[in-house]
Amino acid sequence: MENILSVIPLGGVQEIGLNMTVFEYNNDIIIVDAGLMFPEEDMLGVDFVIPDFSYILDNVEKIKGIVLTHGHEDHIGALPFLLKEISIPVYGTALTLGLVRSKLLEHNLENIELIPVKPRDVIKLGVFSVEFVRVTHSIVDGVGLGIQTPVGLVVHTGDFKLDPTPVDGQLMDLHKFTEYGEKGTLLLLSDSTNSEKGGFTFSEKEVLRIFENIFSSAPGRIIIATFASNIHRIQQAIDVAVKFNRKVIICGKSIVSNAQIALDLGYLRIPKNTWLRLEDLPTLKDNEAVIITTGSQGEPMSVLSRIAMDEHKEIKIREGDTVVLSARMIPGNERSIGRIINHLFRRGANVFYEKVSEVHVSGHASKEELKLMLNLVKPKYFMPIHGEYRHLVYHSILAKKLGIPKENIFILEDGDILEISDKEARKNGRVNSGRVFIDGKGVGDVKEMVLRDRLRLAHDGIVLILLSIEKLTGNIVSGPDIISRGFVFEDASQEVINDVKKLLTDTIKGLDKEVISDSSVLQAKLRSTLKKYLRETMDRRPMIMPIIFEV
Amino acid sequence: MENILSVIPLGGVQEIGLNMTVFEYNNDIIIVDAGLMFPEEDMLGVDFVIPDFSYILDNVEKIKGIVLTHGHEDHIGALPFLLKEISIPVYGTALTLGLVRSKLLEHNLENIELIPVKPRDVIKLGVFSVEFVRVTHSIVDGVGLGIQTPVGLVVHTGDFKLDPTPVDGQLMDLHKFTEYGEKGTLLLLSDSTNSEKGGFTFSEKEVLRIFENIFSSAPGRIIIATFASNIHRIQQAIDVAVKFNRKVIICGKSIVSNAQIALDLGYLRIPKNTWLRLEDLPTLKDNEAVIITTGSQGEPMSVLSRIAMDEHKEIKIREGDTVVLSARMIPGNERSIGRIINHLFRRGANVFYEKVSEVHVSGHASKEELKLMLNLVKPKYFMPIHGEYRHLVYHSILAKKLGIPKENIFILEDGDILEISDKEARKNGRVNSGRVFIDGKGVGDVKEMVLRDRLRLAHDGIVLILLSIEKLTGNIVSGPDIISRGFVFEDASQEVINDVKKLLTDTIKGLDKEVISDSSVLQAKLRSTLKKYLRETMDRRPMIMPIIFEV
Repeated sequence: MENILSVIPLGGVQEIGLNMTVFEYNNDIIIVDAGLMFPEEDMLGVDFVIPDFSYILDNVEKIKGIVLTHGHEDHIGALPFLLKEISIPVYGTALTLGLVRSKLLEHNLENIELIPVKPRDVIKLGVFSVEFVRVTHSIVDGVGLGIQTPVGLVVHTGDFKLDPTPVDGQLMDLHKFTEYGEKGTLLLLSDSTNSEKGGFTFSEKEVLRIFENIFSSAPGRIIIATFASNIHRIQQAIDVAVKFNRKVIICGKSIVSNAQIALDLGYLRIPKNTWLRLEDLPTLKDNEAVIITTGSQGEPMSVLSRIAMDEHKEIKIREGDTVVLSARMIPGNERSIGRIINHLFRRGANVFYEKVSEVHVSGHASKEELKLMLNLVKPKYFMPIHGEYRHLVYHSILAKKLGIPKENIFILEDGDILEISDKEARKNGRVNSGRVFIDGKGVGDVKEMVLRDRLRLAHDGIVLILLSIEKLTGNIVSGPDIISRGFVFEDASQEVINDVKKLLTDTIKGLDKEVISDSSVLQAKLRSTLKKYLRETMDRRPMIMPIIFEV
Repeated sequence: MENILSVIPLGGVQEIGLNMTVFEYNNDIIIVDAGLMFPEEDMLGVDFVIPDFSYILDNVEKIKGIVLTHGHEDHIGALPFLLKEISIPVYGTALTLGLVRSKLLEHNLENIELIPVKPRDVIKLGVFSVEFVRVTHSIVDGVGLGIQTPVGLVVHTGDFKLDPTPVDGQLMDLHKFTEYGEKGTLLLLSDSTNSEKGGFTFSEKEVLRIFENIFSSAPGRIIIATFASNIHRIQQAIDVAVKFNRKVIICGKSIVSNAQIALDLGYLRIPKNTWLRLEDLPTLKDNEAVIITTGSQGEPMSVLSRIAMDEHKEIKIREGDTVVLSARMIPGNERSIGRIINHLFRRGANVFYEKVSEVHVSGHASKEELKLMLNLVKPKYFMPIHGEYRHLVYHSILAKKLGIPKENIFILEDGDILEISDKEARKNGRVNSGRVFIDGKGVGDVKEMVLRDRLRLAHDGIVLILLSIEKLTGNIVSGPDIISRGFVFEDASQEVINDVKKLLTDTIKGLDKEVISDSSVLQAKLRSTLKKYLRETMDRRPMIMPIIFEV
């Protein structure tokens, strides 16, 4: 449409993760973020999910650049897959680009134009000019965006909370958000992750106090598990370690890489001779060591999981060790995390975790902060982002309470187009959107049908019926034989299997030669016979595949 | 052992669910509870889990009876499977036996001796005498046990919390527990489920206040989802409905059955003309109806789930409806529950759930209540039960703080024997124990290998290589053909499959005739070739099954 701003979320609304939004005006497009999502429990075997980029690929000539709000996977994780398809400039703060750079190297992507920006920088991208505004969040160097468009100012918060005492001392730029409100904001897109929670989210500094309590009474080694990207948390662990005369060992590929990037860029402050290598661990007394690692979500291959299972070569838990899981238990992971905690206790460790100690604070704004943001920015239109449907609803309820009319609030779906002219705003039409599954080296080749099959296989396994038939006569040459995997026949008595064979043999004998010689009909017949039998006798529904060789 | 009391948990320690404990003295055995457990996420396709009963079956002649503490599935759910094997008398309170009876009928078990008891009743079972002691919990008619044994008194709390204002007015029998402490208790077994939680658990009555708030501002129909066994919660929903002039419709097989049992036994009080049938729903105005149902855990076949997906014939959500999920989100279920909440919001309902409203209180004692129990009963020995390892550890820490010596506290594993003589107590030896998987109509036929196969199938699917070979010459008659399920070949281009076929054909051509004529060697060869190829080109590891027909 002419002279109309289109705002199109390709991911990140009505879901957690996949954050990616397109802003389009005539012949200019900018993209904000390109995040991934971790698979849901029915996405069997899928490593992670990225948004469907086809709308972007169809409009390559319009793209002026991609702007990143911060370095979390749900905002930058899909970037390598996008940049494999198109080469566009990437704008972000120093740490964000540091994390992106290491990610692009893993994917052998070079010659990508990475353009560093600082808070309050303004860049011109076609008709848009984008101002970067410092926000506080659980990763350092995060920004929100003030996007000046021909129809008015759009404010995008990125992920944020209002931390009055951030670890790095870099306060949220409330003055800029206030200025936006004062001058007049057309549209606000704001983080809805914690919109169910009342009150204010605690400052990251609160964790320091808890760490100090734990350190002051820990007799042996201390192991702290957190997210690899949580530089603030790593900084606080290091600060407390120094205070209590302990050395720090960082363990795990991703967290070491992130810490090194943050250190090189000046976002992590570590006194000399404090960060030792894993090889140095045996030279330290137990009460001189802190190990910082990942695995707070119970990931089976993580360092923490291997420690808990006693499968880590260098780190063996002993009586007196303290383990701190300094992260939120992400829904869906509670059981794996619970198992790890049980194992650590069994090996003699004392374990601190979210349920029993305040070892974690959220990085997202709660209700009072969200209201403050709405009141500061005073947008005409409001679009809650970053959250499941219910989070967007709760955020909308807040906006309505603060006086934004219902018809000016837009809960979109991925792919919906929000069109804004200087007169009005409305949902109008959709673009291609969806989820692309990354499984091993495959991008998008796992489709719904494959997942449906995996679900069935997972539930009751597979049973093969092998049969060879003389094509001319319809006589059985060999079989029917039964092979199963993930089905109980593997452990069943020969008797049960003989019953099944007999059932199938009788079925074949009862059929016309004509039917037998048409192997697709014979297959259907065998499948339905066995299906019915297994359902009735065992209440089970495995996948059944008759395989017929014609001789 | 002679003149020694053996306490043997067959389930319920270091896990949630499966509660079952054996008490043995010379030639007498009594069993407390026989519970099931819901499957963990890697138990693919398993419906539920029961304890391995083999120790009981090996000692049938000693069994004097089974005593039930209350009617929850994790305490009575394995009973039908036990009673199919042996016929023993079952003791429990009226409601507990009511629930057991309907369960036994489902399993076509008749002629089981069900003996009702009342709180403060004492029954003699061999050398044991068992006294029933009223406790408060999230189901009515729960009891703890005072078991007099030849070596001393054993107190078993069952599941409990200290509810000072129970819905049915039936207070916990603190006087009896006090008497046990005064007279001297040898061993206490106590519920550890909530031992991580500080303070006191709220009274069930607190939910009433919340219900009243919700009812007072709900414009349309109200749907309350809870556990089918939570008679207290159903009672409170009914009480508030009556207060607000609404009629009640109970919807769902298990909850209707439980409510009917409770009503018949006098545990549920419903004024006349209050409980209507589902068919009456259309005759009610929206603000006259309350629907009580199940599905609070997001179970896909439940009424609530079908309502959320708009697949329920009689109940369609409309703007103004209110849905209350009045239950805990059990770890592992958060995502399914979250999906249902999102769907309900999308259809226009206002939804209340644990995270945003106090619509549920726990049925288990928190730290202060657990300490009070320990202080009242003053046991010499202490065995925390009903909890994962970490819960048992936290409970032990409380006991130590209250002065019970470390060596008198026993954290057992399922199958461990705790031997108590009049002189000492110690762990000594083990009996057979374990988990038996119930899958469809199968009891125990799903073994670890089947589950491992299901996990592999779930992750990457299965690829079949079909080949027929002339036995004498080793020539290929037909194939190799490729069939896959849950693997990406189903959607892949013919090109990829042709590459694979060529690879396998070349492999076969490169082999000696001798190898080809030995089909197990040929199978291994084909499997390893394809495995390597798929790992290297696609980073995938499906199950590979070569199927060779020899002609």
